[in-house]
Amino acid sequence: MPDQVTVIGGSGALGQGLALRLAAAGVPVVIGSRDESRAQEAAARVKQQVPEADVRGLANGPAAEASEIVFLTVPFRNQSETLTNLKNHLREGQLLVDATVPLAAAVSGKATRTLGVWQGSAAQQAQEMAPDGVRVVSALHTVSAAILGDLDHPLDEDILVCGNRKADKQVAIELIQRIEGLRCVDCGPLEMARTTESLTALLIGVNARYKTHAGIKITGL
Amino acid sequence: MPDQVTVIGGSGALGQGLALRLAAAGVPVVIGSRDESRAQEAAARVKQQVPEADVRGLANGPAAEASEIVFLTVPFRNQSETLTNLKNHLREGQLLVDATVPLAAAVSGKATRTLGVWQGSAAQQAQEMAPDGVRVVSALHTVSAAILGDLDHPLDEDILVCGNRKADKQVAIELIQRIEGLRCVDCGPLEMARTTESLTALLIGVNARYKTHAGIKITGL
Repeated sequence: MPDQVTVIGGSGALGQGLALRLAAAGVPVVIGSRDESRAQEAAARVKQQVPEADVRGLANGPAAEASEIVFLTVPFRNQSETLTNLKNHLREGQLLVDATVPLAAAVSGKATRTLGVWQGSAAQQAQEMAPDGVRVVSALHTVSAAILGDLDHPLDEDILVCGNRKADKQVAIELIQRIEGLRCVDCGPLEMARTTESLTALLIGVNARYKTHAGIKITGL
Repeated sequence: MPDQVTVIGGSGALGQGLALRLAAAGVPVVIGSRDESRAQEAAARVKQQVPEADVRGLANGPAAEASEIVFLTVPFRNQSETLTNLKNHLREGQLLVDATVPLAAAVSGKATRTLGVWQGSAAQQAQEMAPDGVRVVSALHTVSAAILGDLDHPLDEDILVCGNRKADKQVAIELIQRIEGLRCVDCGPLEMARTTESLTALLIGVNARYKTHAGIKITGL
């Protein structure tokens, strides 16, 4: 198992929730944010809830360099810029777990709709933009950031994982499954992120309609 | 509740399974097929498993005329042609429940990929092609035809339902939920079928990977 992971966008709702849950599961976490002080504030919030947490905040660049596994949990509006800025910080051999969802909200459209991404999905854009040798896996689109960020709320749902290499997916799966109540399902190659990303928009609609924080489970496994 | 429903494509795997489950739930069913004798054979197979079933087979045209609720369960390859042939048989006020999935298999591609449909989804193509006043709802993409067709296999999964009018969805939902073990979830307007249809391709991949007949459940409801 990896010693430490980085969460880029860790001061956002999803990143913060993910950092909190991983820290509570005993995983050392580096929170990255564009603004180092915001990253440190986010780390302090995790520490407040999980006093024994091994967590610290850094600016995105050093945060991305710090771990072999890097989660990318930024809004789609910032994904391309963030990856451009990380070009000289990410390196061959790292695993990038992309959780970006191309919601139409990025261009002032509805959060229940997605944008078409030229490469097919945000995850495929991440694969194209990441430096050579950085392996990309796509995950974490269907878990509610609000539930992730509330340690009192038990989790009981699936994380749909896409990626082109089974070994890469396995690393991400073993890590994510350290969070109790999350089961990972291998949903095939990275191109399947077209569908898993669009599920976020569908669930945002379900949340509004049913006043809940919905997630996904695959039956029959 | 409606007295009777029609299943166009009822001699195919999904249609046959749906007709079987509805008949077992006490719903009178008309099975439609391009070839009347194939429809009658399919009805006989239902009758064999559910002797008290009220089921008969007709050619697609008369079958489509026979009920206020018409399920469309044909392969994407045949959807457009079928709807063209039904133009003079469907009528204003009927509810068309479209279950078509634009799998790339329709053009000798992979069943784990979908085709782009100009209208956005197969369901939206159905809405465009159906005669004026025929209301279209989209459903039944994620339930396995094999499981549906096996009465000994208990069902325990969700059916994602999309449509532009709540009242139309409610009619479809009440009907589908007569099948024990199926819970319907309102997933928003018909355009959301882009995502629910693509889930079929994702589940076909999961089925191959995990040697199962997977389905979907929404958590948090």
